[in-house]
Amino acid sequence: MKTIEEIRSLDAADPLADFRNRFELPDGVIYLDGNSLGVMPKSAPERMAQVVKTEWGQDLIRSWNRHDWIGYPRRLGAKIAPLIGARPDEVVVADSTSINIFKALSAALQLNPDRPVILSERGNFPTNVYMMQGLSAHSAGAIEHRLVDTSELESHFDNNVAALLITQAHYKTGYLHDMQAITAAAQAKGIVVIWDLCHSAGALEIDLHACNADMAVGCGYKYLHGGPGAPAFIFVAERHQNRIMPVLSGWLGHARPFDFSDDYVPAGGIDRFKCSSPSILGMAALECGLDIHAAADMAAVRTKSVALTELFIEQVEARVGEMGFRLASPRDPAIRGSQVSFHHENGYPVMQALIARGVIGDFRDPDILRFGFTPLYTSHEDVFRAAGILQSIMESGEWREPRFSVRAAVT
Amino acid sequence: MKTIEEIRSLDAADPLADFRNRFELPDGVIYLDGNSLGVMPKSAPERMAQVVKTEWGQDLIRSWNRHDWIGYPRRLGAKIAPLIGARPDEVVVADSTSINIFKALSAALQLNPDRPVILSERGNFPTNVYMMQGLSAHSAGAIEHRLVDTSELESHFDNNVAALLITQAHYKTGYLHDMQAITAAAQAKGIVVIWDLCHSAGALEIDLHACNADMAVGCGYKYLHGGPGAPAFIFVAERHQNRIMPVLSGWLGHARPFDFSDDYVPAGGIDRFKCSSPSILGMAALECGLDIHAAADMAAVRTKSVALTELFIEQVEARVGEMGFRLASPRDPAIRGSQVSFHHENGYPVMQALIARGVIGDFRDPDILRFGFTPLYTSHEDVFRAAGILQSIMESGEWREPRFSVRAAVT
Repeated sequence: MKTIEEIRSLDAADPLADFRNRFELPDGVIYLDGNSLGVMPKSAPERMAQVVKTEWGQDLIRSWNRHDWIGYPRRLGAKIAPLIGARPDEVVVADSTSINIFKALSAALQLNPDRPVILSERGNFPTNVYMMQGLSAHSAGAIEHRLVDTSELESHFDNNVAALLITQAHYKTGYLHDMQAITAAAQAKGIVVIWDLCHSAGALEIDLHACNADMAVGCGYKYLHGGPGAPAFIFVAERHQNRIMPVLSGWLGHARPFDFSDDYVPAGGIDRFKCSSPSILGMAALECGLDIHAAADMAAVRTKSVALTELFIEQVEARVGEMGFRLASPRDPAIRGSQVSFHHENGYPVMQALIARGVIGDFRDPDILRFGFTPLYTSHEDVFRAAGILQSIMESGEWREPRFSVRAAVT
Repeated sequence: MKTIEEIRSLDAADPLADFRNRFELPDGVIYLDGNSLGVMPKSAPERMAQVVKTEWGQDLIRSWNRHDWIGYPRRLGAKIAPLIGARPDEVVVADSTSINIFKALSAALQLNPDRPVILSERGNFPTNVYMMQGLSAHSAGAIEHRLVDTSELESHFDNNVAALLITQAHYKTGYLHDMQAITAAAQAKGIVVIWDLCHSAGALEIDLHACNADMAVGCGYKYLHGGPGAPAFIFVAERHQNRIMPVLSGWLGHARPFDFSDDYVPAGGIDRFKCSSPSILGMAALECGLDIHAAADMAAVRTKSVALTELFIEQVEARVGEMGFRLASPRDPAIRGSQVSFHHENGYPVMQALIARGVIGDFRDPDILRFGFTPLYTSHEDVFRAAGILQSIMESGEWREPRFSVRAAVT
């Protein structure tokens, strides 16, 4: 077993260690839930005060020009682009992940008008499959939404399939798909491939161009630290952009929105995937997170992410491996995202007991304890101490206290 | 011509005068643009600091329960309900106006599955007609989006029409439709009526139940003072709610979102019209505006609104009526919203000159100067002084300065 001194020497040698100082880490908390809601950048309160007091409060409507509010969706898209291997003119920040999934699915159906099937895997993050279901339900039988087991995905790649909607890092297990191989195999059958990067953007090296991705969507409030309910992003490869008539054809996607004409003419390029007035408060908060990322080398982020997850697995298995914990994430770090999940039959009360001791992760039905590691602010010492607290909880049996079995509204 | 003393006595007698103190009115500005972006409630900076520093920064993911973030869409919906004559369980705050229009249109097509036409008026606010157009373009010819002149609307009410999408207060002129008469006439032909309340909610007495409305949408950042890009609202009459399978079937509209199941089961009631994770920062700001409204009598709001618009028309016509200004709004206050618009052939530079002198309104192509009056913070003296400054600009000819003819990015 490693000593705390050895662990601290890992932090001392961490090339990303200074980034931790740019985030507000609450006292008494080891936060392993950045894959659900990222920690607040320390710059956020001041930036939010500025956008509220000055830009809204004093400059009011003039801020659309004076503070370039109107440019926010593209400006933030351009800041996300290098994190995902896209060009600045291929990404826009707008609406929510669910809405952007709808945009991408309906666009794929346009690109493949003679194909009736939209395909995904069972157990994908729910909003993916739910958005597929709504689109299908409103198609008068024209569109089939098909969910299959992951192992059977490729056997369904055929010329009936218009779109594959697939999540790079699985929200429960962290299992990482091979983007390059899946994209190539699906595209070989003419399928448009939509990547959901919610649980990977900002935590992994992603290269959408290297894998020739068609479209992608992602979340602003997890590894991009954009704040609760932050606006989401959508990537559309340049080769497709002008071939798509947006179904969500809102006025900010118009070529000349301030003409106020009766006829929708889509803007050229990625701008047509904007829909409505941007949430300026949400954009301002997201910008704080993205500005931190601008200085971080994504290869170093991935290296540290692997080190943290390896350390956590090693520590948990050494300390409580005999007490009913079974790894739910892939053991091979090459196919594991920036999270580690364990099965445990008492997963719910164990997680509640951890949270009561300041170690914040998630529980996911039926029996999964999920821990997220954000390389920009999670330290090796955090990981080591979290595992130690888990050991303490298991050895003392404090997780058996009745209060830890009471389900909260949101879990 | 009234004297400034007479004007001040009107303010002194104004039963809503104290509300002005709850808003941040910038020095040197007469803000007549609350119908574009409402003024900031004074409570907003502190509330935003709290949600950022404490709820996000310290409590992080625990805030979904601890601060009932998850309840925000319904909690704010319930605060909007009394402003529009709805029940608390018929309104939810979610997404944007454009997205909510899409939800309502697609729901109406479900309620009227055998009717191919969605109907609106020419010159409606663009995002209304654009969202119709996208829906139609993706219907493979099944849906016709039809725009007709306002005077011809009723002649198109027939059993081919699934939905009428109509805006209560016109964004350019402030012309007010008769909600009761139009709803009744359309419903007599089996048409589902969707009211866009963007330019009226918060400024007028609206009674959706009295006119038996089917659905409605509205904007959070105009007369509800919710901040730039605030989330929007949607009303669905209780009688329709459970008959609709949402096309935007995101996970927060699920009956049990935290089951993370593969199958979308819509929540009962208005909750199914939620889609994605709420924008918490936007919700917190909007709540500040709604909390002010809770204390305001809407009949008094309307009475003052009429007084302000009448005064402005009287003042402008008396001062500069001979200098090319022609009323674009209805002269009868019964069919006029809380705004006054004038045509003027040099409308653009005149508005820029007004803005340079601190009188902020909007210009709308081709020749409209638009002034919005927000009864909770606009005073009679504001109106009087704005008209005086307009007179000064016209008499001095300062609007002819070349700098006032340069078009800004957003106008």
